[in-house]
Amino acid sequence: MLSFENDYSEGAHPRILQKLVETNMHQEAGYGEDSFTAQAKAKIKTVIDNPSASVHFLQGGTQTNQIVIDALLEPYEGVITPDKGHMNVHEAGAIEYTGHKLLSLPTVDGKLTAAEVRKYLETFYDDDHHEFMVFPGMVYISYPTEYGLIYSKKELTELHQVCKEYQIPLFIDGARLGYGLMSSASDITFKELAQLCDVFYIGGTKTGALCGEAVVFTSDNEPKHFITTIKQHGALLAKGRLIGIQFLELFSNNLYFELSKHADEMSQIVKKGFLEKGYRPYLNSDTNQQFFIVEDTKIKALAQKVRFARWLRYDDTHSVIRFSTCWATPEKNVQELLKLI
Amino acid sequence: MLSFENDYSEGAHPRILQKLVETNMHQEAGYGEDSFTAQAKAKIKTVIDNPSASVHFLQGGTQTNQIVIDALLEPYEGVITPDKGHMNVHEAGAIEYTGHKLLSLPTVDGKLTAAEVRKYLETFYDDDHHEFMVFPGMVYISYPTEYGLIYSKKELTELHQVCKEYQIPLFIDGARLGYGLMSSASDITFKELAQLCDVFYIGGTKTGALCGEAVVFTSDNEPKHFITTIKQHGALLAKGRLIGIQFLELFSNNLYFELSKHADEMSQIVKKGFLEKGYRPYLNSDTNQQFFIVEDTKIKALAQKVRFARWLRYDDTHSVIRFSTCWATPEKNVQELLKLI
Amino acid sequence: MLSFENDYSEGAHPRILQKLVETNMHQEAGYGEDSFTAQAKAKIKTVIDNPSASVHFLQGGTQTNQIVIDALLEPYEGVITPDKGHMNVHEAGAIEYTGHKLLSLPTVDGKLTAAEVRKYLETFYDDDHHEFMVFPGMVYISYPTEYGLIYSKKELTELHQVCKEYQIPLFIDGARLGYGLMSSASDITFKELAQLCDVFYIGGTKTGALCGEAVVFTSDNEPKHFITTIKQHGALLAKGRLIGIQFLELFSNNLYFELSKHADEMSQIVKKGFLEKGYRPYLNSDTNQQFFIVEDTKIKALAQKVRFARWLRYDDTHSVIRFSTCWATPEKNVQELLKLI
Amino acid sequence: MLSFENDYSEGAHPRILQKLVETNMHQEAGYGEDSFTAQAKAKIKTVIDNPSASVHFLQGGTQTNQIVIDALLEPYEGVITPDKGHMNVHEAGAIEYTGHKLLSLPTVDGKLTAAEVRKYLETFYDDDHHEFMVFPGMVYISYPTEYGLIYSKKELTELHQVCKEYQIPLFIDGARLGYGLMSSASDITFKELAQLCDVFYIGGTKTGALCGEAVVFTSDNEPKHFITTIKQHGALLAKGRLIGIQFLELFSNNLYFELSKHADEMSQIVKKGFLEKGYRPYLNSDTNQQFFIVEDTKIKALAQKVRFARWLRYDDTHSVIRFSTCWATPEKNVQELLKLI
Repeated sequence: MLSFENDYSEGAHPRILQKLVETNMHQEAGYGEDSFTAQAKAKIKTVIDNPSASVHFLQGGTQTNQIVIDALLEPYEGVITPDKGHMNVHEAGAIEYTGHKLLSLPTVDGKLTAAEVRKYLETFYDDDHHEFMVFPGMVYISYPTEYGLIYSKKELTELHQVCKEYQIPLFIDGARLGYGLMSSASDITFKELAQLCDVFYIGGTKTGALCGEAVVFTSDNEPKHFITTIKQHGALLAKGRLIGIQFLELFSNNLYFELSKHADEMSQIVKKGFLEKGYRPYLNSDTNQQFFIVEDTKIKALAQKVRFARWLRYDDTHSVIRFSTCWATPEKNVQELLKLI
Repeated sequence: MLSFENDYSEGAHPRILQKLVETNMHQEAGYGEDSFTAQAKAKIKTVIDNPSASVHFLQGGTQTNQIVIDALLEPYEGVITPDKGHMNVHEAGAIEYTGHKLLSLPTVDGKLTAAEVRKYLETFYDDDHHEFMVFPGMVYISYPTEYGLIYSKKELTELHQVCKEYQIPLFIDGARLGYGLMSSASDITFKELAQLCDVFYIGGTKTGALCGEAVVFTSDNEPKHFITTIKQHGALLAKGRLIGIQFLELFSNNLYFELSKHADEMSQIVKKGFLEKGYRPYLNSDTNQQFFIVEDTKIKALAQKVRFARWLRYDDTHSVIRFSTCWATPEKNVQELLKLI
Repeated sequence: MLSFENDYSEGAHPRILQKLVETNMHQEAGYGEDSFTAQAKAKIKTVIDNPSASVHFLQGGTQTNQIVIDALLEPYEGVITPDKGHMNVHEAGAIEYTGHKLLSLPTVDGKLTAAEVRKYLETFYDDDHHEFMVFPGMVYISYPTEYGLIYSKKELTELHQVCKEYQIPLFIDGARLGYGLMSSASDITFKELAQLCDVFYIGGTKTGALCGEAVVFTSDNEPKHFITTIKQHGALLAKGRLIGIQFLELFSNNLYFELSKHADEMSQIVKKGFLEKGYRPYLNSDTNQQFFIVEDTKIKALAQKVRFARWLRYDDTHSVIRFSTCWATPEKNVQELLKLI
Repeated sequence: MLSFENDYSEGAHPRILQKLVETNMHQEAGYGEDSFTAQAKAKIKTVIDNPSASVHFLQGGTQTNQIVIDALLEPYEGVITPDKGHMNVHEAGAIEYTGHKLLSLPTVDGKLTAAEVRKYLETFYDDDHHEFMVFPGMVYISYPTEYGLIYSKKELTELHQVCKEYQIPLFIDGARLGYGLMSSASDITFKELAQLCDVFYIGGTKTGALCGEAVVFTSDNEPKHFITTIKQHGALLAKGRLIGIQFLELFSNNLYFELSKHADEMSQIVKKGFLEKGYRPYLNSDTNQQFFIVEDTKIKALAQKVRFARWLRYDDTHSVIRFSTCWATPEKNVQELLKLI
């Protein structure tokens, strides 16, 4: 059956697999000290034009959030985060497991504004009893958000400004980073995004890799003995080459960006098609995920013909459903989908 | 340069890569719910002849030790372990990170005996103040050990017996399980080993996979909501298929055992060759790692021609060095090595 | 200066100090094994008419919440709690420090209703992805709440009923328990309250003791090796008698209840006096704390003459302030206060 | 029955109780902000002649070790400690609970030497794989040790020197500090001891207080937001005055030192008496605890007449038993004891 259920249903882009095959018998050092990993790190630093950045490869998104946040926060600090983020809901308490509180701010659409963050920080430091409270030690956002929305250059600039004033890092979860950067609605380059935060990660898993996320510390702020911290969290692969090779290929010949762009384009066709047929959008996404408010009876019928994700209950008779595209989505599948709805 | 540095210097066995290529475009469910993972689990249960076992796939050894131990222990419990084990030294405190103490017993050769474990448990419960001490909640051993030694059927049976008496699980770290089982010195079958413990894992990383370890709970003792625990530890891969496919191939057509056997045979040639040339063995290993006590000046010279691991300082003028073989070691390399020494 | 700032400004009720003096030179066992602690435990079990309850003494409220919650929850569980509770704000992340998420439900007045809890639990188990979420493992409420409100017998009965249906414990934080039980608005006895939850604690610190809280497990549910857990959390006093003696005296001759009743009565005089002078109550408290919405300029003037707590900003020109009474508040102080406002 | 079981069998020295009674009705700020606590801190800084020291009061020894170690270590660090220390055995894993490994060094008598510590640190940094190991982040010793031994000025100076070279703090557990400082064998003043470490604590519980330990950071090294960390660990008493008042009295008119000296003198009479009667000492203690190797049959007989602590099994027919004195031990009790043996 046709599936638009998520952006990780297939394996890896064929060029990535090919690279794994080609390099397979090279004897390399373990634990991320191999030559492919070194090349992949260099590629990423070049593409963001920041030679002093530091790059590390981890396996998945929850793991990356957990390790980056735990490594950058002091034990008495928590992380400011939008309340609708997956970290708050679908990561099984992975952040709290490390002892840190999520300081969740209510949002309308899952995006944090600089004004909201500033107000939280001001109120915190104005409170006579703030020494008995969890100190806000970081701001965390997703780009794009779980709902496919992106931040504008102005929005990111303002957020980063507040963080700089309060001397706390801005961390961008880029599980779907490429889909945001290549979105037709984006007004920001990769280099600019990297300058407008203190740490971010580039999602491999959801953009054509078998696994792997690349953490980038942008401002001489790699936590001391970060390798030890990664090992302590059980996240240091013996064959670090597995992820190094994949990112090396993703950042060769623009592959990462082309895959992202393709998915965004497919998603825009989905969006246009649904809107033309009168479907009601939940919000206006310009990235690889589209959310629609659909009657439950219609959802049930649709589910016979195509796979998608049920996102949330909207009201007694409607739910929000999600259609994802990815590097592997051929346009003919999109056209078939549009015929089905 | 010729390398016998470790058993994870290459990528994956070609049949595994081939399987990843073949299955690549299948659309599958995420987070370990894919059909390949299901098949791989079934294969493993068949090979140990235990239909009620439960199997889960994780990414690496430290991660697996951390999650299994944290999930099986009560918060006030620690794990009995031989003092020379890598968990005690080279895992960056990954177990203590989860709040559990390692209850390290001194050993001569890194192997725990049933008598030592029994004495520890008796002494513990005899202590009037044991309520102020960390409760021993598990026994952990490696098979083979970091020094390539294996336990006999009798030894494992006795260890398991003590554990049963005290109602604590016996956990076997099988990062190099195959090399033990296929050793010419082994008197135990895989099925028997699986019966003589409560939980073990089958190492993929060191036996031909790109990554991945298979945890097997043998006695209806999978921790409740284990998936949630895996997720909470940041260890649930979105593309769970990556590991499922690899284990499916490893346990098809006996591949896992053949690869292990090959490495053991190559290692025995190394051993014989070194002994014939008068090298002094550190201990008598029948698995894929050989340890020799060598003069430092000789080590320095040797290091110009071949890669190996420096293991530990033996005395003021000698060190212990290690030569590892693996699935990817051709016999001609072993013969070249023997010419060099 | 006259102070109504909180209910812990003085030392201990004189009868408690007297008891400490009288018993001082008795040689007793340490770590809570002394005869006074045993007697105090027996007294508490008698007063709640539950011989099979188990009682433990700890030092303060945050510590008690932390240990009880950590001991009763599984590692993958969190605790349902009203969003306005101090545990969420002013306990410095003490619960998250133990790895558990607070599952905060929005409330109007800081009280949780059975309907809200049931809805949360139903929604949780209806979610297809709940295995990736923090499991709700306990319901936590304060009696009275931080705002002095109490639950009726009906409300507690319904809350406990939901907990029983979902087989999770109901934990009542009784830092100010006596003030609730002795409130003129209370329709519940101590025995009934103890029956309507699975664990609660009796606050000593805020009811006339120097320190100390008594945890009571009501339904054969003391966590295994709880003493070990207390020790592991650094909370086992060598001279456990210090708290045992205080609770022994508090529960002799009705002292605990008389002290609580006195404070409630003083508080009602405060309330009546403020209302008569036209002060606007923030909510209707019948326990030992009164909250009023007052103009900031008036607050500033008042602060010259009497000490009270600034609670929260109400709007641009008003704040909520709190006046607390306790066992040590003489009626003449209350009358003086009323003259000042 | 006559008891020499431990040094915390009685309540508090009468002058301490008297002070609690006298100050009882003063209305004071909570959470350690009271005037008595401020005075007590000033007294301690005066007695060690270090105006820039910072002092905090906690409740018990395990708690103090746990909080100081957790606050001073980075998450990837552990603490070097002698293997026989109680922290390793009888503190229920309280340090590991906070995620830190104990790096235990074998010792003959429970004392660490500078040479042993230096060797450990050198070996650690020489290890090519030390990035995969727990970093040594602190040295912890007890003064006196659990066996009543003290360090000489030379020994402490050398230990501190190694710590300074490696830039890690030296932490002295002073649960029985006074008994060491006032020992006839001590060659060090309190001021000198405070200069020869980076943090230490003064035990109140075992020297005449009801509870309480005073942590002293000696070199501008109070951890940032330490109050928040104390609160987060559940260790901030609402009525901080309870401990402040006790230390204020202990450090008024030399009380702390007089109590310690008295106990040491009583202990020396015990020691002399036992030696004269031919008892075999386990080691040579000049502080308030004496350890003897005694035949088990004799121990059994003795236990009918006097209370003491059974310490450890020495061989098949002998055990080590301990006799403690304290501030409350009258000389006539010691004389009675000597008659009994």
